[in-house]
Amino acid sequence: MNPLRDPEDGRLPHIAGPCALVFFGVSGDLSRKKLLPAVYDLANRGLLPPGFGLVGVARRDYTDARFAEIVKGHVKENARTPFRDETWKQLVAGIRFVWGDFDDGGTFERLRAVLDELDTEQGTAGNHAFYLSVPPSRFERVIDQLTRHGMTDQSTGWKRVVIEKPFGHDLASSRALYDTLSRAFPAESVFRIDHYLGKETVQNLLALRFSNQMFEPLWNSNHVSHVQITMAEDIGIGGRAGYYDGIGAARDVIQNHLLQLMALTAMEEPNSFDASQLRIEKQKVLAAARVPDDLDAHTARGQYAAGWQGGSRVIGYLDEEGIAPDSTTETYAAVRLDIDTRRWAGVPFYLRSAKRMPRRVTEIALMFKRAPHLPFTNTETRELGTNALVLRIQPDEGVSMHFGAKVPATAMEIRQVSMDFAYADSFNETSPEAYERLILDVLLGEPPLFPQQEEVELSWRLLDPVLAHWSAQGRPEQYASGTWGPAGGARMLANDGFAWRRP
Amino acid sequence: MNPLRDPEDGRLPHIAGPCALVFFGVSGDLSRKKLLPAVYDLANRGLLPPGFGLVGVARRDYTDARFAEIVKGHVKENARTPFRDETWKQLVAGIRFVWGDFDDGGTFERLRAVLDELDTEQGTAGNHAFYLSVPPSRFERVIDQLTRHGMTDQSTGWKRVVIEKPFGHDLASSRALYDTLSRAFPAESVFRIDHYLGKETVQNLLALRFSNQMFEPLWNSNHVSHVQITMAEDIGIGGRAGYYDGIGAARDVIQNHLLQLMALTAMEEPNSFDASQLRIEKQKVLAAARVPDDLDAHTARGQYAAGWQGGSRVIGYLDEEGIAPDSTTETYAAVRLDIDTRRWAGVPFYLRSAKRMPRRVTEIALMFKRAPHLPFTNTETRELGTNALVLRIQPDEGVSMHFGAKVPATAMEIRQVSMDFAYADSFNETSPEAYERLILDVLLGEPPLFPQQEEVELSWRLLDPVLAHWSAQGRPEQYASGTWGPAGGARMLANDGFAWRRP
Repeated sequence: MNPLRDPEDGRLPHIAGPCALVFFGVSGDLSRKKLLPAVYDLANRGLLPPGFGLVGVARRDYTDARFAEIVKGHVKENARTPFRDETWKQLVAGIRFVWGDFDDGGTFERLRAVLDELDTEQGTAGNHAFYLSVPPSRFERVIDQLTRHGMTDQSTGWKRVVIEKPFGHDLASSRALYDTLSRAFPAESVFRIDHYLGKETVQNLLALRFSNQMFEPLWNSNHVSHVQITMAEDIGIGGRAGYYDGIGAARDVIQNHLLQLMALTAMEEPNSFDASQLRIEKQKVLAAARVPDDLDAHTARGQYAAGWQGGSRVIGYLDEEGIAPDSTTETYAAVRLDIDTRRWAGVPFYLRSAKRMPRRVTEIALMFKRAPHLPFTNTETRELGTNALVLRIQPDEGVSMHFGAKVPATAMEIRQVSMDFAYADSFNETSPEAYERLILDVLLGEPPLFPQQEEVELSWRLLDPVLAHWSAQGRPEQYASGTWGPAGGARMLANDGFAWRRP
Repeated sequence: MNPLRDPEDGRLPHIAGPCALVFFGVSGDLSRKKLLPAVYDLANRGLLPPGFGLVGVARRDYTDARFAEIVKGHVKENARTPFRDETWKQLVAGIRFVWGDFDDGGTFERLRAVLDELDTEQGTAGNHAFYLSVPPSRFERVIDQLTRHGMTDQSTGWKRVVIEKPFGHDLASSRALYDTLSRAFPAESVFRIDHYLGKETVQNLLALRFSNQMFEPLWNSNHVSHVQITMAEDIGIGGRAGYYDGIGAARDVIQNHLLQLMALTAMEEPNSFDASQLRIEKQKVLAAARVPDDLDAHTARGQYAAGWQGGSRVIGYLDEEGIAPDSTTETYAAVRLDIDTRRWAGVPFYLRSAKRMPRRVTEIALMFKRAPHLPFTNTETRELGTNALVLRIQPDEGVSMHFGAKVPATAMEIRQVSMDFAYADSFNETSPEAYERLILDVLLGEPPLFPQQEEVELSWRLLDPVLAHWSAQGRPEQYASGTWGPAGGARMLANDGFAWRRP
């Protein structure tokens, strides 16, 4: 720790110790757009150690120098912080490339030699993080190869593995994945990344709920009628047909991101924000949650059809390249969950995730009950909506409240208004890219915000029956691109006497 | 009622019936700046009847035509709505002037003749409102003359009287005033105007509190630690030495405006917003309120000294023209009140009113308790302030909430932020000048928001002991103009472990 720094300064960043970071699947989109730029940004912010190595593994015929040039291109294009020659010079000394197929033992022999060399020449000290930016179907093979070639031995420095969601495609497969991981790595060395759920989002939520007095008294079934958690994307599947088809909106987003947001919203106050304490509270929520029995009434799914998006004509899901014309993969998924706790009994949580919505937005909306009595005439409150407290996750991260106020000058007419707080307006600091924090936490070995296997399994337990029900139903309902989804989604809330918020 | 209008339209304005409005003291500042322009604005908005008369009474030698010219000048200078010849033409037909002294019976004979003539020629139908824009010391004389000259007879059309605060200068004098008024007018014909407390403000408060679900659960001693009600003016006494000296901040503002705001903030939900129901709830609060025994600890007063205001050097109160160099009149007054009800026991209400503050602001701030437990380290919440819900009365009428949020990108650091709602941003409608609504309500005979004698007496009952205590203390503490007041004001809150909000 820098002795010149105030040890009380909570803003003191932690700097990673010596280590090498290995990216499998380094030629993919994610590496280009997010992972490699994030590594550079960390270096630029002084958060990487002098003894640092960056190793790419892929089926390309690159030299180290050529790979470094490619990384440099990605960094210049996509990094958040400005390009500085000094940072780059330091980083490039530790950049290596290993070519080869994951099925070929020779690839891993070469990788081991490169890591040995980095340990010696760059001082990476036997600490290695393996980031699996590859399809889930390849996880097992890569992990087995790492074990077989002696690269998971914790006695010669720490060894960590990073995997991206989805963590399996149902409960059974997530357990199989867990078994594979467990054979090679102890639980604390496995980092499950849900890139939608940046550490910043989680911490903002915790700070809002638990540093204030004015929200918590309202945060329960006495005052909240229901909760709406939405992740809407305005894009379609783009070039990701191979990944998305057969996965769908529920597995892709609800299973991890939205259920995590639900758990953070619904959980009791933890004793502290230690990884273990937070996990206990989130697991309690997931264990107390259930999808109501009548799945036709309480879930909804859809598939985007052709439509208009941002002024352009766009094609439907079934016409996207690489999608079978009879695909039943849903691009809109909505599920009601009930949480059987004293705090939330009787308060439905509605989770929805969809593509090709009118706009991109992720938010958590606590929708309040009507006041038990309104000492007004009906006409006075005709335009009064539902009180709501909305936590905006993206874009424009912030908080807003929606309530009724009198229209000036009129006799007595109450209309819905809102007030708003935006992080960007109140702070000069900007949030780092989620991947910066996630990667740094991996290198620091700080697990507090990565979901553990128990949470993954609890989430699949909730979704499995829904997915089974849907797969027995044939084709999902179609909805026009650029609309807020299929009629079934609206009906699902209307059944309960509610309506989706227009975010 | 216009048959083309939707009878369900809550925004339908009520139009006054035929009547004449008499201003005593029409040559004063208030008439010029506020009252006469407000009458014009009402006419311009179509809210005055065709049969309308406007009579000025003052010790000036004006003809009707000359007076009309003067009114026109004030209107052009100070009206809120644009000048329209058509409106003016209609208004000017009913404008009359009566010259004379209030001690002279002839003045009132002339007034009666003018009113008779208006009834006949303008169709004002024997309905007369007398607006006493004169010093309180003249109230009794004017009212006696009106009675003596037969102008308070309700059998020939309604007769109403309007008086401005202060309603007496203590409990005894307010009762004497009441006796005078009662001899001439029934209670429902007496309109006490507190011009600070526009109907709009009252209605906004009622709408916010009682049309929403999200505020009321917080609105009690479980969550609120104390309430601060502030009316700060940035100006000094200006040319109003004759009015202000001997009155002071407590009588001028706390007795009426701030205690009314307190009552509206603290009251239970009325069955309806009928005058009688509202009055019951406000009276309950005022009757349950008391100033704590130790007046030295729980009240504070001050007198502005020279200082800097808006970049200019300004003189102290004792150097103002017309103020005796040994005046003990306070220009800063602060009082703690406790309200002995289930909802508010243990929650002090701090009321302060002052001149020559750094800025002009009227607000009600509900200051919340700290969360009972913060699962954060001390350094993380070092910059966390008090949660507050602030109702801004003026300027920029609106609502804001103050709470803690995480600073982006830092480890975990929570700082105070706010979100805000402003009426002006959300509505196209602008609030009418308080006087427009007040005058219209007088002409319509709608009393809901005018304080009644009971409230006036309950308010004096609270203030009398404080004023007596202060008058035994000699000179008030001095505070530099352009500051937030004397040390005693800060000490008063510090005694209880609190601090004034910086609005």
